[in-house]
Amino acid sequence: MRNILIEIEYDGTNYYGWQLQPKGRTIQGEIVSVLKELTGTDITVHGAGRTDSRVHARGQTASFTLVSSIPTDRIPQAMNRLLPADISVKKAHEVPGDFHARYSAIGKRYSYQIYRGPNRSALLRNYCHHVIYSLDLEKMKEGAALLIGTHDFGGFMSSGSSVKSTVRTVHAINLKEEENRLWLTFEGNGFLYNMVRIMVGTLIQVSAGQRSLENIKLALENQNRNEAGPTAPPQGLFLDKVFYQDWNQPITEK
Amino acid sequence: MRNILIEIEYDGTNYYGWQLQPKGRTIQGEIVSVLKELTGTDITVHGAGRTDSRVHARGQTASFTLVSSIPTDRIPQAMNRLLPADISVKKAHEVPGDFHARYSAIGKRYSYQIYRGPNRSALLRNYCHHVIYSLDLEKMKEGAALLIGTHDFGGFMSSGSSVKSTVRTVHAINLKEEENRLWLTFEGNGFLYNMVRIMVGTLIQVSAGQRSLENIKLALENQNRNEAGPTAPPQGLFLDKVFYQDWNQPITEK
Repeated sequence: MRNILIEIEYDGTNYYGWQLQPKGRTIQGEIVSVLKELTGTDITVHGAGRTDSRVHARGQTASFTLVSSIPTDRIPQAMNRLLPADISVKKAHEVPGDFHARYSAIGKRYSYQIYRGPNRSALLRNYCHHVIYSLDLEKMKEGAALLIGTHDFGGFMSSGSSVKSTVRTVHAINLKEEENRLWLTFEGNGFLYNMVRIMVGTLIQVSAGQRSLENIKLALENQNRNEAGPTAPPQGLFLDKVFYQDWNQPITEK
Repeated sequence: MRNILIEIEYDGTNYYGWQLQPKGRTIQGEIVSVLKELTGTDITVHGAGRTDSRVHARGQTASFTLVSSIPTDRIPQAMNRLLPADISVKKAHEVPGDFHARYSAIGKRYSYQIYRGPNRSALLRNYCHHVIYSLDLEKMKEGAALLIGTHDFGGFMSSGSSVKSTVRTVHAINLKEEENRLWLTFEGNGFLYNMVRIMVGTLIQVSAGQRSLENIKLALENQNRNEAGPTAPPQGLFLDKVFYQDWNQPITEK
Protein backbone atom coordinates (compact mmCIF):
# COMPACT_ATOMS: atom_id res chain seq x y z
CA MET A 1 0.00 0.00 0.00
CA ARG A 2 1.51 3.27 -1.13
CA ASN A 3 0.46 6.89 -0.89
CA ILE A 4 0.82 8.41 -4.34
CA LEU A 5 0.87 12.01 -5.53
CA ILE A 6 0.29 12.70 -9.21
CA GLU A 7 0.82 15.90 -11.20
CA ILE A 8 -1.89 16.48 -13.78
CA GLU A 9 -2.28 18.68 -16.83
CA TYR A 10 -5.71 19.28 -18.29
CA ASP A 11 -7.75 21.34 -20.66
CA GLY A 12 -10.83 22.29 -18.66
CA THR A 13 -12.88 23.39 -21.68
CA ASN A 14 -15.09 20.33 -21.83
CA TYR A 15 -15.47 19.64 -18.10
CA TYR A 16 -17.66 20.76 -15.23
CA GLY A 17 -14.50 21.56 -13.30
CA TRP A 18 -12.27 19.41 -11.14
CA GLN A 19 -14.65 18.14 -8.53
CA LEU A 20 -16.64 14.94 -8.85
CA GLN A 21 -20.35 15.54 -9.18
CA PRO A 22 -23.41 13.42 -9.82
CA LYS A 23 -23.96 14.62 -13.37
CA GLY A 24 -21.53 16.05 -15.88
CA ARG A 25 -17.96 15.04 -16.64
CA THR A 26 -15.29 16.26 -14.22
CA ILE A 27 -11.52 15.80 -14.13
CA GLN A 28 -11.64 14.09 -10.75
CA GLY A 29 -14.38 11.81 -12.07
CA GLU A 30 -12.24 10.74 -15.02
CA ILE A 31 -9.27 10.04 -12.75
CA VAL A 32 -11.32 8.02 -10.27
CA SER A 33 -12.77 6.02 -13.12
CA VAL A 34 -9.38 5.27 -14.66
CA LEU A 35 -7.98 4.20 -11.28
CA LYS A 36 -10.96 1.89 -10.87
CA GLU A 37 -10.29 0.41 -14.30
CA LEU A 38 -6.59 -0.09 -13.46
CA THR A 39 -6.99 -1.53 -9.98
CA GLY A 40 -10.52 -2.86 -9.81
CA THR A 41 -11.21 -0.86 -6.64
CA ASP A 42 -12.85 2.43 -5.74
CA ILE A 43 -10.11 4.87 -4.82
CA THR A 44 -10.65 8.21 -3.10
CA VAL A 45 -8.68 10.93 -4.87
CA HIS A 46 -7.83 14.19 -3.08
CA GLY A 47 -7.09 17.12 -5.36
CA ALA A 48 -5.03 20.14 -4.29
CA GLY A 49 -7.44 22.68 -5.75
CA ARG A 50 -10.97 22.70 -7.06
CA THR A 51 -10.79 24.33 -10.43
CA ASP A 52 -14.03 25.57 -11.96
CA SER A 53 -15.51 24.61 -15.28
CA ARG A 54 -13.30 25.74 -18.22
CA VAL A 55 -10.31 26.45 -15.94
CA HIS A 56 -7.13 24.62 -16.97
CA ALA A 57 -4.20 23.09 -15.14
CA ARG A 58 -0.58 22.53 -16.01
CA GLY A 59 0.26 21.28 -12.54
CA GLN A 60 -2.79 20.25 -10.54
CA THR A 61 -1.90 17.59 -7.98
CA ALA A 62 -3.90 14.78 -6.41
CA SER A 63 -3.09 12.14 -3.82
CA PHE A 64 -4.53 8.70 -3.21
CA THR A 65 -3.74 5.39 -1.58
CA LEU A 66 -2.87 2.66 -4.02
CA VAL A 67 -3.00 -1.10 -3.50
CA SER A 68 -1.42 -2.32 -6.70
CA SER A 69 1.90 -3.69 -7.88
CA ILE A 70 2.36 -1.11 -10.61
CA PRO A 71 5.70 0.71 -10.18
CA THR A 72 5.27 4.38 -9.27
CA ASP A 73 7.15 5.61 -12.32
CA ARG A 74 4.84 3.65 -14.63
CA ILE A 75 1.67 5.22 -13.24
CA PRO A 76 1.58 8.18 -15.67
CA GLN A 77 1.80 5.94 -18.74
CA ALA A 78 -0.72 3.44 -17.39
CA MET A 79 -3.24 6.17 -16.58
CA ASN A 80 -2.65 8.15 -19.79
CA ARG A 81 -3.47 5.10 -21.88
CA LEU A 82 -6.98 5.22 -20.45
CA LEU A 83 -7.54 8.93 -19.83
CA PRO A 84 -9.13 11.16 -22.49
CA ALA A 85 -6.71 13.24 -24.61
CA ASP A 86 -7.50 16.45 -22.70
CA ILE A 87 -6.22 15.06 -19.37
CA SER A 88 -2.65 13.89 -18.86
CA VAL A 89 -0.75 12.63 -15.82
CA LYS A 90 2.73 14.12 -16.06
CA LYS A 91 4.44 12.64 -12.99
CA ALA A 92 3.82 10.31 -10.07
CA HIS A 93 5.63 10.34 -6.71
CA GLU A 94 5.49 8.04 -3.72
CA VAL A 95 4.80 10.21 -0.67
CA PRO A 96 4.62 9.60 3.11
CA GLY A 97 1.44 8.04 4.48
CA ASP A 98 0.18 11.26 6.05
CA PHE A 99 0.71 13.31 2.92
CA HIS A 100 -2.43 14.93 1.47
CA ALA A 101 -2.44 16.82 -1.85
CA ARG A 102 -4.55 19.63 -0.39
CA TYR A 103 -3.66 19.84 3.30
CA SER A 104 0.07 19.36 2.77
CA ALA A 105 0.26 22.13 0.17
CA ILE A 106 2.07 25.28 1.29
CA GLY A 107 1.31 27.34 -1.77
CA LYS A 108 0.11 27.51 -5.33
CA ARG A 109 0.88 29.30 -8.52
CA TYR A 110 -1.81 30.32 -10.98
CA SER A 111 -1.46 32.17 -14.22
CA TYR A 112 -3.98 34.05 -16.29
CA GLN A 113 -3.81 34.82 -20.00
CA ILE A 114 -5.22 38.03 -21.45
CA TYR A 115 -5.43 38.51 -25.20
CA ARG A 116 -5.32 42.14 -26.30
CA GLY A 117 -6.41 43.48 -29.62
CA PRO A 118 -9.42 44.60 -31.59
CA ASN A 119 -10.27 41.12 -32.91
CA ARG A 120 -10.70 37.87 -31.01
CA SER A 121 -8.15 35.05 -31.26
CA ALA A 122 -9.34 31.82 -32.88
CA LEU A 123 -6.45 29.74 -31.56
CA LEU A 124 -6.66 31.06 -28.00
CA ARG A 125 -10.45 31.15 -27.76
CA ASN A 126 -10.51 28.58 -24.94
CA TYR A 127 -7.33 29.78 -23.22
CA CYS A 128 -7.59 33.52 -22.76
CA HIS A 129 -9.76 36.46 -21.82
CA HIS A 130 -10.08 38.79 -24.79
CA VAL A 131 -9.75 42.45 -23.76
CA ILE A 132 -10.50 45.04 -26.42
CA TYR A 133 -9.77 48.31 -24.60
CA SER A 134 -6.22 49.47 -23.97
CA LEU A 135 -4.56 48.67 -20.67
CA ASP A 136 -2.05 50.79 -18.77
CA LEU A 137 0.39 48.14 -17.58
CA GLU A 138 2.18 50.51 -15.20
CA LYS A 139 -1.15 51.12 -13.50
CA MET A 140 -1.72 47.38 -13.41
CA LYS A 141 1.64 46.87 -11.69
CA GLU A 142 0.73 49.50 -9.09
CA GLY A 143 -2.51 47.67 -8.42
CA ALA A 144 -0.70 44.34 -8.20
CA ALA A 145 1.75 45.80 -5.67
CA LEU A 146 -1.15 46.65 -3.37
CA LEU A 147 -2.37 43.04 -3.45
CA ILE A 148 0.99 41.50 -2.59
CA GLY A 149 1.44 40.62 1.07
CA THR A 150 -0.74 39.26 3.85
CA HIS A 151 -4.25 40.67 3.72
CA ASP A 152 -7.82 39.78 4.51
CA PHE A 153 -8.98 38.98 0.97
CA GLY A 154 -12.64 38.64 1.98
CA GLY A 155 -13.49 41.28 -0.65
CA PHE A 156 -11.87 39.13 -3.32
CA MET A 157 -13.96 36.01 -2.81
CA SER A 158 -17.12 34.71 -4.42
CA SER A 159 -19.80 33.44 -2.08
CA GLY A 160 -20.42 29.72 -2.01
CA SER A 161 -17.40 28.54 -0.08
CA SER A 162 -17.02 28.15 3.65
CA VAL A 163 -13.61 29.04 5.00
CA LYS A 164 -12.57 29.80 8.59
CA SER A 165 -10.34 32.67 7.66
CA THR A 166 -10.13 34.88 4.61
CA VAL A 167 -6.58 35.99 5.36
CA ARG A 168 -4.09 34.88 2.72
CA THR A 169 -0.58 35.80 1.68
CA VAL A 170 0.16 36.66 -1.92
CA HIS A 171 3.89 36.24 -2.40
CA ALA A 172 4.22 37.53 -5.92
CA ILE A 173 2.29 38.84 -8.90
CA ASN A 174 4.15 39.01 -12.18
CA LEU A 175 3.26 40.44 -15.56
CA LYS A 176 4.75 39.14 -18.78
CA GLU A 177 3.97 40.56 -22.20
CA GLU A 178 4.36 38.42 -25.28
CA GLU A 179 3.19 40.11 -28.50
CA ASN A 180 -0.54 40.70 -27.98
CA ARG A 181 -0.76 38.37 -25.01
CA LEU A 182 -0.39 39.28 -21.38
CA TRP A 183 0.30 36.69 -18.71
CA LEU A 184 -0.43 37.47 -15.05
CA THR A 185 1.11 35.05 -12.57
CA PHE A 186 0.06 34.77 -8.93
CA GLU A 187 1.91 32.95 -6.19
CA GLY A 188 0.54 32.66 -2.71
CA ASN A 189 0.08 30.41 0.29
CA GLY A 190 -3.51 29.79 -0.76
CA PHE A 191 -6.34 31.42 -2.65
CA LEU A 192 -10.00 31.89 -1.76
CA TYR A 193 -12.82 30.84 -4.07
CA ASN A 194 -12.44 32.81 -7.35
CA MET A 195 -9.79 35.02 -5.72
CA VAL A 196 -7.39 34.91 -8.66
CA ARG A 197 -10.12 35.67 -11.17
CA ILE A 198 -11.42 38.58 -9.05
CA MET A 199 -7.87 39.97 -8.69
CA VAL A 200 -7.51 39.73 -12.48
CA GLY A 201 -10.88 41.41 -13.07
CA THR A 202 -9.89 44.17 -10.65
CA LEU A 203 -6.45 44.72 -12.20
CA ILE A 204 -7.95 44.88 -15.69
CA GLN A 205 -10.42 47.56 -14.59
CA VAL A 206 -7.71 49.53 -12.80
CA SER A 207 -5.43 49.43 -15.84
CA ALA A 208 -8.34 50.39 -18.10
CA GLY A 209 -9.18 53.39 -15.90
CA GLN A 210 -12.55 51.95 -14.90
CA ARG A 211 -11.59 51.57 -11.25
CA SER A 212 -8.98 53.24 -9.06
CA LEU A 213 -6.16 52.04 -6.83
CA GLU A 214 -8.26 53.43 -4.00
CA ASN A 215 -10.86 50.73 -4.68
CA ILE A 216 -8.24 48.03 -4.14
CA LYS A 217 -7.16 49.61 -0.85
CA LEU A 218 -10.76 49.82 0.31
CA ALA A 219 -11.52 46.23 -0.71
CA LEU A 220 -8.53 45.08 1.33
CA GLU A 221 -9.55 47.25 4.30
CA ASN A 222 -13.26 46.59 4.52
CA GLN A 223 -13.65 43.31 2.58
CA ASN A 224 -16.35 44.85 0.45
CA ARG A 225 -16.80 42.72 -2.66
CA ASN A 226 -18.18 45.75 -4.52
CA GLU A 227 -14.89 47.64 -4.26
CA ALA A 228 -13.14 44.85 -6.17
CA GLY A 229 -13.73 44.28 -9.88
CA PRO A 230 -15.70 41.58 -11.66
CA THR A 231 -14.67 37.93 -11.76
CA ALA A 232 -12.62 37.46 -14.92
CA PRO A 233 -13.84 34.58 -17.12
CA PRO A 234 -12.62 31.06 -16.34
CA GLN A 235 -10.93 30.10 -19.62
CA GLY A 236 -7.91 32.39 -19.06
CA LEU A 237 -6.97 30.69 -15.79
CA PHE A 238 -4.33 27.97 -15.35
CA LEU A 239 -3.34 26.21 -12.12
CA ASP A 240 0.39 26.01 -12.78
CA LYS A 241 1.92 24.47 -9.70
CA VAL A 242 1.25 23.30 -6.17
CA PHE A 243 4.09 23.76 -3.70
CA TYR A 244 4.96 21.34 -0.89
CA GLN A 245 7.55 21.51 1.83
CA ASP A 246 7.28 18.91 4.58
CA TRP A 247 8.40 16.09 2.39
CA ASN A 248 12.03 15.30 1.80
CA GLN A 249 11.86 15.27 -1.98
CA PRO A 250 10.37 18.54 -3.14
CA ILE A 251 8.24 18.10 -6.25
CA THR A 252 9.09 21.38 -7.79
CA GLU A 253 11.70 24.01 -7.36
CA LYS A 254 10.10 27.35 -7.05
CA MET B 1 -15.80 47.61 -56.16
CA ARG B 2 -12.71 47.00 -54.09
CA ASN B 3 -10.11 44.26 -54.03
CA ILE B 4 -9.69 43.19 -50.42
CA LEU B 5 -7.01 41.15 -48.67
CA ILE B 6 -7.79 39.69 -45.26
CA GLU B 7 -5.46 38.10 -42.71
CA ILE B 8 -7.00 35.10 -40.99
CA GLU B 9 -6.24 33.11 -37.85
CA TYR B 10 -7.78 29.67 -37.41
CA ASP B 11 -7.71 26.49 -35.42
CA GLY B 12 -7.76 23.76 -38.06
CA THR B 13 -8.70 20.97 -35.65
CA ASN B 14 -12.32 20.70 -36.68
CA TYR B 15 -11.98 21.38 -40.41
CA TYR B 16 -11.21 19.45 -43.56
CA GLY B 17 -8.50 21.99 -44.31
CA TRP B 18 -8.62 25.35 -46.05
CA GLN B 19 -10.03 24.47 -49.42
CA LEU B 20 -13.72 24.44 -50.22
CA GLN B 21 -15.04 20.98 -50.92
CA PRO B 22 -18.44 19.43 -51.56
CA LYS B 23 -18.71 17.73 -48.18
CA GLY B 24 -17.11 18.59 -44.88
CA ARG B 25 -16.55 21.97 -43.27
CA THR B 26 -13.57 23.97 -44.56
CA ILE B 27 -12.16 27.36 -43.61
CA GLN B 28 -12.66 28.74 -47.11
CA GLY B 29 -16.22 27.43 -47.06
CA GLU B 30 -16.99 29.30 -43.83
CA ILE B 31 -15.52 32.52 -45.20
CA VAL B 32 -17.42 32.29 -48.48
CA SER B 33 -20.62 31.64 -46.57
CA VAL B 34 -20.10 34.62 -44.23
CA LEU B 35 -19.35 36.91 -47.19
CA LYS B 36 -22.54 35.73 -48.83
CA GLU B 37 -24.47 36.47 -45.65
CA LEU B 38 -22.93 39.96 -45.44
CA THR B 39 -23.29 40.97 -49.07
CA GLY B 40 -26.00 38.75 -50.50
CA THR B 41 -23.72 37.65 -53.34
CA ASP B 42 -21.47 34.69 -54.11
CA ILE B 43 -17.88 35.85 -53.78
CA THR B 44 -14.84 33.94 -55.00
CA VAL B 45 -12.18 33.85 -52.30
CA HIS B 46 -8.54 33.14 -53.18
CA GLY B 47 -6.41 31.83 -50.32
CA ALA B 48 -2.62 32.15 -50.23
CA GLY B 49 -2.05 28.57 -49.14
CA ARG B 50 -4.08 25.38 -48.94
CA THR B 51 -3.62 24.12 -45.44
CA ASP B 52 -4.55 20.50 -44.75
CA SER B 53 -7.01 19.21 -42.22
CA ARG B 54 -5.91 19.96 -38.63
CA VAL B 55 -3.25 22.47 -39.77
CA HIS B 56 -3.59 25.91 -38.16
CA ALA B 57 -2.97 29.47 -39.28
CA ARG B 58 -2.00 32.64 -37.49
CA GLY B 59 -1.63 34.58 -40.71
CA GLN B 60 -3.33 32.93 -43.67
CA THR B 61 -4.37 35.49 -46.25
CA ALA B 62 -7.19 35.56 -48.78
CA SER B 63 -8.24 38.06 -51.43
CA PHE B 64 -11.61 38.77 -53.00
CA THR B 65 -13.52 41.44 -54.87
CA LEU B 66 -16.12 43.18 -52.77
CA VAL B 67 -19.14 45.13 -53.92
CA SER B 68 -20.38 46.55 -50.65
CA SER B 69 -20.32 49.84 -48.79
CA ILE B 70 -18.77 48.42 -45.64
CA PRO B 71 -15.56 50.33 -44.77
CA THR B 72 -12.43 48.19 -45.14
CA ASP B 73 -11.42 48.61 -41.50
CA ARG B 74 -14.82 47.31 -40.35
CA ILE B 75 -14.58 44.07 -42.33
CA PRO B 76 -12.86 42.03 -39.56
CA GLN B 77 -15.52 42.90 -36.99
CA ALA B 78 -18.38 42.33 -39.41
CA MET B 79 -17.05 38.93 -40.46
CA ASN B 80 -16.08 37.83 -36.94
CA ARG B 81 -19.61 38.41 -35.72
CA LEU B 82 -20.72 35.67 -38.10
CA LEU B 83 -17.71 33.35 -38.22
CA PRO B 84 -17.38 30.39 -35.81
CA ALA B 85 -15.12 30.96 -32.77
CA ASP B 86 -12.26 28.94 -34.25
CA ILE B 87 -11.85 31.29 -37.24
CA SER B 88 -11.01 34.97 -36.86
CA VAL B 89 -10.28 37.73 -39.37
CA LYS B 90 -7.48 39.82 -37.87
CA LYS B 91 -7.03 42.54 -40.49
CA ALA B 92 -8.39 43.73 -43.82
CA HIS B 93 -6.55 45.81 -46.43
CA GLU B 94 -7.64 47.37 -49.68
CA VAL B 95 -5.25 46.18 -52.41
CA PRO B 96 -4.75 46.97 -56.11
CA GLY B 97 -7.13 45.36 -58.58
CA ASP B 98 -4.56 42.89 -59.91
CA PHE B 99 -3.52 41.72 -56.45
CA HIS B 100 -4.06 38.02 -55.74
CA ALA B 101 -3.46 36.45 -52.31
CA ARG B 102 -1.67 33.49 -53.83
CA TYR B 103 0.00 34.72 -57.01
CA SER B 104 1.20 38.00 -55.50
CA ALA B 105 2.83 36.28 -52.53
CA ILE B 106 6.63 36.32 -52.52
CA GLY B 107 7.08 34.07 -49.53
CA LYS B 108 5.62 32.39 -46.49
CA ARG B 109 6.52 31.56 -42.95
CA TYR B 110 5.39 28.36 -41.27
CA SER B 111 6.16 27.14 -37.80
CA TYR B 112 5.92 23.70 -36.30
CA GLN B 113 5.56 22.81 -32.63
CA ILE B 114 7.14 19.71 -31.15
CA TYR B 115 6.35 18.65 -27.59
CA ARG B 116 9.10 16.65 -25.92
CA GLY B 117 8.74 14.47 -22.88
CA PRO B 118 7.66 11.05 -21.74
CA ASN B 119 3.98 11.94 -21.32
CA ARG B 120 1.64 13.60 -23.78
CA SER B 121 0.41 17.17 -23.26
CA ALA B 122 -3.32 17.60 -22.63
CA LEU B 123 -3.31 21.33 -23.38
CA LEU B 124 -1.26 21.07 -26.57
CA ARG B 125 -2.88 17.89 -27.90
CA ASN B 126 -4.22 19.66 -31.01
CA TYR B 127 -1.25 21.98 -31.47
CA CYS B 128 1.91 19.87 -31.37
CA HIS B 129 3.61 16.68 -32.39
CA HIS B 130 4.54 14.68 -29.31
CA VAL B 131 8.03 13.21 -29.56
CA ILE B 132 9.08 10.76 -26.85
CA TYR B 133 12.67 9.96 -27.80
CA SER B 134 15.48 12.40 -27.15
CA LEU B 135 16.56 14.79 -29.88
CA ASP B 136 20.05 16.09 -30.57
CA LEU B 137 19.35 19.70 -31.42
CA GLU B 138 22.85 20.36 -32.72
CA LYS B 139 22.32 17.56 -35.21
CA MET B 140 18.95 19.07 -36.09
CA LYS B 141 20.60 22.41 -36.80
CA GLU B 142 23.14 20.71 -39.07
CA GLY B 143 20.29 19.09 -40.97
CA ALA B 144 18.42 22.38 -41.20
CA ALA B 145 21.53 24.10 -42.60
CA LEU B 146 21.56 21.61 -45.49
CA LEU B 147 17.97 22.48 -46.37
CA ILE B 148 18.50 26.24 -46.46
CA GLY B 149 19.06 27.68 -49.91
CA THR B 150 17.72 27.06 -53.39
CA HIS B 151 17.23 23.36 -54.08
CA ASP B 152 15.05 20.98 -56.01
CA PHE B 153 12.80 19.84 -53.17
CA GLY B 154 11.10 17.13 -55.24
CA GLY B 155 12.14 14.58 -52.59
CA PHE B 156 10.32 16.63 -49.96
CA MET B 157 6.90 16.61 -51.58
CA SER B 158 3.87 14.37 -51.23
CA SER B 159 2.26 13.20 -54.41
CA GLY B 160 -1.12 14.62 -55.31
CA SER B 161 -0.11 18.09 -56.43
CA SER B 162 0.82 19.25 -59.89
CA VAL B 163 3.54 21.85 -60.02
CA LYS B 164 5.71 22.95 -62.94
CA SER B 165 8.89 23.14 -60.92
CA THR B 166 9.93 21.63 -57.62
CA VAL B 167 12.74 24.15 -57.10
CA ARG B 168 12.18 26.35 -54.07
CA THR B 169 14.29 28.63 -51.90
CA VAL B 170 14.29 28.20 -48.15
CA HIS B 171 15.54 31.47 -46.67
CA ALA B 172 15.74 30.45 -43.05
CA ILE B 173 15.03 27.66 -40.59
CA ASN B 174 15.08 28.57 -36.92
CA LEU B 175 14.85 26.50 -33.75
CA LYS B 176 13.51 27.88 -30.52
CA GLU B 177 13.33 25.91 -27.29
CA GLU B 178 10.81 26.84 -24.63
CA GLU B 179 10.75 24.43 -21.68
CA ASN B 180 9.64 21.11 -23.17
CA ARG B 181 8.46 22.66 -26.41
CA LEU B 182 10.48 23.10 -29.55
CA TRP B 183 9.42 25.48 -32.32
CA LEU B 184 10.81 25.08 -35.83
CA THR B 185 10.25 28.05 -38.11
CA PHE B 186 10.59 27.93 -41.90
CA GLU B 187 10.76 30.90 -44.24
CA GLY B 188 10.89 30.49 -47.97
CA ASN B 189 9.68 31.78 -51.30
CA GLY B 190 7.19 28.93 -51.49
CA PHE B 191 6.66 25.40 -50.26
CA LEU B 192 5.60 22.25 -52.10
CA TYR B 193 2.75 20.05 -50.93
CA ASN B 194 3.60 18.78 -47.42
CA MET B 195 7.16 20.12 -47.80
CA VAL B 196 7.31 21.68 -44.33
CA ARG B 197 5.93 18.58 -42.66
CA ILE B 198 8.39 16.34 -44.53
CA MET B 199 11.31 18.61 -43.60
CA VAL B 200 10.14 18.41 -39.97
CA GLY B 201 9.80 14.62 -40.12
CA THR B 202 13.29 14.40 -41.63
CA LEU B 203 14.89 16.73 -39.08
CA ILE B 204 13.30 14.79 -36.21
CA GLN B 205 14.69 11.51 -37.51
CA VAL B 206 18.12 13.03 -38.09
CA SER B 207 18.22 14.46 -34.56
CA ALA B 208 17.00 11.15 -33.13
CA GLY B 209 19.76 9.25 -34.95
CA GLN B 210 17.27 7.37 -37.14
CA ARG B 211 18.47 8.99 -40.34
CA SER B 212 21.75 10.65 -41.33
CA LEU B 213 22.70 14.00 -42.81
CA GLU B 214 23.73 12.00 -45.86
CA ASN B 215 20.06 11.14 -46.44
CA ILE B 216 19.20 14.84 -46.62
CA LYS B 217 21.98 15.46 -49.12
CA LEU B 218 20.82 12.54 -51.26
CA ALA B 219 17.18 13.63 -51.13
CA LEU B 220 18.21 17.07 -52.37
CA GLU B 221 20.41 15.56 -55.08
CA ASN B 222 18.19 12.86 -56.51
CA GLN B 223 14.70 13.95 -55.33
CA ASN B 224 14.10 10.52 -53.88
CA ARG B 225 11.21 10.74 -51.43
CA ASN B 226 12.55 7.68 -49.59
CA GLU B 227 15.72 9.47 -48.54
CA ALA B 228 13.67 12.08 -46.69
CA GLY B 229 11.81 11.26 -43.48
CA PRO B 230 8.11 10.73 -42.84
CA THR B 231 5.53 13.50 -43.07
CA ALA B 232 5.17 14.93 -39.55
CA PRO B 233 1.55 15.04 -38.33
CA PRO B 234 -0.61 18.06 -39.31
CA GLN B 235 -1.58 19.40 -35.89
CA GLY B 236 1.91 20.81 -35.13
CA LEU B 237 1.89 23.05 -38.20
CA PHE B 238 0.98 26.76 -38.31
CA LEU B 239 0.93 29.05 -41.34
CA ASP B 240 2.30 32.16 -39.64
CA LYS B 241 2.64 34.75 -42.35
CA VAL B 242 2.40 35.41 -46.07
CA PHE B 243 4.83 37.95 -47.49
CA TYR B 244 4.03 40.43 -50.26
CA GLN B 245 6.17 42.95 -52.03
CA ASP B 246 4.69 44.55 -55.11
CA TRP B 247 2.20 46.60 -53.25
CA ASN B 248 3.01 49.96 -51.75
CA GLN B 249 1.81 49.18 -48.25
CA PRO B 250 3.53 46.01 -47.07
CA ILE B 251 1.23 43.94 -44.87
CA THR B 252 3.90 42.63 -42.64
CA GLU B 253 7.40 43.55 -41.75
CA LYS B 254 9.59 40.54 -41.96
